[in-house]
Amino acid sequence: MTANQLYGQIKEKQSCLCVGLDPDLDRLPAALDGEKYPLFIFNREIIDATAQFAVCYKPNTAFYECYGAWGWEQLEMTVGYIKEQYPEMMVIADAKRGDIGNTAGHYAKAFFENMPCDAVTLAPYMGRDSVEPFLAYKDKWAVVLGLTSNASAADFEMQDDLYKKVISTAMQWGTPDNMMFVAGATRPQMLADIRAICPDHFLLVPGVGAQGGSVEQVAKYGANSRCGLLINSSRGIIYASSGSDFADAAAAAAASLKSQMEEKIIAR
Amino acid sequence: MTANQLYGQIKEKQSCLCVGLDPDLDRLPAALDGEKYPLFIFNREIIDATAQFAVCYKPNTAFYECYGAWGWEQLEMTVGYIKEQYPEMMVIADAKRGDIGNTAGHYAKAFFENMPCDAVTLAPYMGRDSVEPFLAYKDKWAVVLGLTSNASAADFEMQDDLYKKVISTAMQWGTPDNMMFVAGATRPQMLADIRAICPDHFLLVPGVGAQGGSVEQVAKYGANSRCGLLINSSRGIIYASSGSDFADAAAAAAASLKSQMEEKIIAR
Repeated sequence: MTANQLYGQIKEKQSCLCVGLDPDLDRLPAALDGEKYPLFIFNREIIDATAQFAVCYKPNTAFYECYGAWGWEQLEMTVGYIKEQYPEMMVIADAKRGDIGNTAGHYAKAFFENMPCDAVTLAPYMGRDSVEPFLAYKDKWAVVLGLTSNASAADFEMQDDLYKKVISTAMQWGTPDNMMFVAGATRPQMLADIRAICPDHFLLVPGVGAQGGSVEQVAKYGANSRCGLLINSSRGIIYASSGSDFADAAAAAAASLKSQMEEKIIAR
Repeated sequence: MTANQLYGQIKEKQSCLCVGLDPDLDRLPAALDGEKYPLFIFNREIIDATAQFAVCYKPNTAFYECYGAWGWEQLEMTVGYIKEQYPEMMVIADAKRGDIGNTAGHYAKAFFENMPCDAVTLAPYMGRDSVEPFLAYKDKWAVVLGLTSNASAADFEMQDDLYKKVISTAMQWGTPDNMMFVAGATRPQMLADIRAICPDHFLLVPGVGAQGGSVEQVAKYGANSRCGLLINSSRGIIYASSGSDFADAAAAAAASLKSQMEEKIIAR
């Protein structure tokens, strides 16, 4: 997926919503008990209910790996379903991988060849080697961790402005057409610092909703003139209801976020 | 697996060898063509040939994920086989995971509950949140990246002594009984710096052999009085021969490394 295709989708749908597909077997609606592939069925319902409000889905690999090969199979089914039914949709594998070059190449193969993901999140600690193999794929994206939304981002990312160094260094390895940065919504002023470093890059923004960030703040500090944002919500959408109306509730939660994005960012 | 059990194994076998199980379908011996589970069969042969010389196996998840659910299944089969046949052996999932607390908990479940791994390698960028869930498991280990063996460790790890800060901070989260650090063999002086920071922790040392590090240098700069090392070799052992004698060649390569470890480190 190219940057222009993604900008086109954002404009067409008046949304920059990314839906995090992080299904937990313990939290799925009782209606799915006894299904052979409950994670996939749950995801499929969520996807069909929210696709009109979203431009991106982001399954986090941890929520599939914890069920072993059976979980991985349902991750593959989920990504395949999105790309078959909604080929214009972006899919980000939230995997936060990072390893030496030869190994990183195998991770790129996992997400870009074995699965049709458009993007993978990457941890930058090991440096350029660990990112470059992903940039070798045409129309695919490396989404590099900049400043994450969690409390312990303070341990290293925020020490000596490490997150700024990571972004200013990593942006030299790719272009705004094949690299994004993760920039949490929970520290708005730092979001502004990041936007100043990379005015043209997409930012993938977690932390809106349960974690305390707001669409308004993200719009104010993180948007550029073309939007330049993918704002993620996971639990706020997929667990909007724990009952049999979970898909309708997810649609309503997604529609609400989409309206905020339209008003605060895209139609500005 | 406890630290005392691991020290006991090192003493009994006079070895601190860790064998990296990173099988690549394109590099497997022709004799395995047509096998239903070629990665597993290859690993099983390597394991049976090298177990007497090794105290640890370290499968890297990238080499399984790139084959999807079928690859993940063979990772599970490999870890299961080691623990059934050689229950005293340590198994490290070289996964380099790192995510916010709730998600990190799911990764811990993947490797410590769904699979019987003893340890997982972790990327420290996101801080304490991303490591702590692994430390909650009794007799399991978090292996935190300190200084890796690749060239681009220079991009961030070596800037402003980040690797030293990571190790000195992370060692406060756990103990020498549930935390190790990755410390590459390719920069011996820095290995000495790391040993000075954490005298009592195990160091998992990649980079001996193909990458240029030597057992002698690692012994000189990285060992403590109880050894305190797991020295990894992957390609140097598993691809010692590409012919039908691959298992015998792997055994010979492992035996040679084991002899060097015995002489230079353990029997000193």
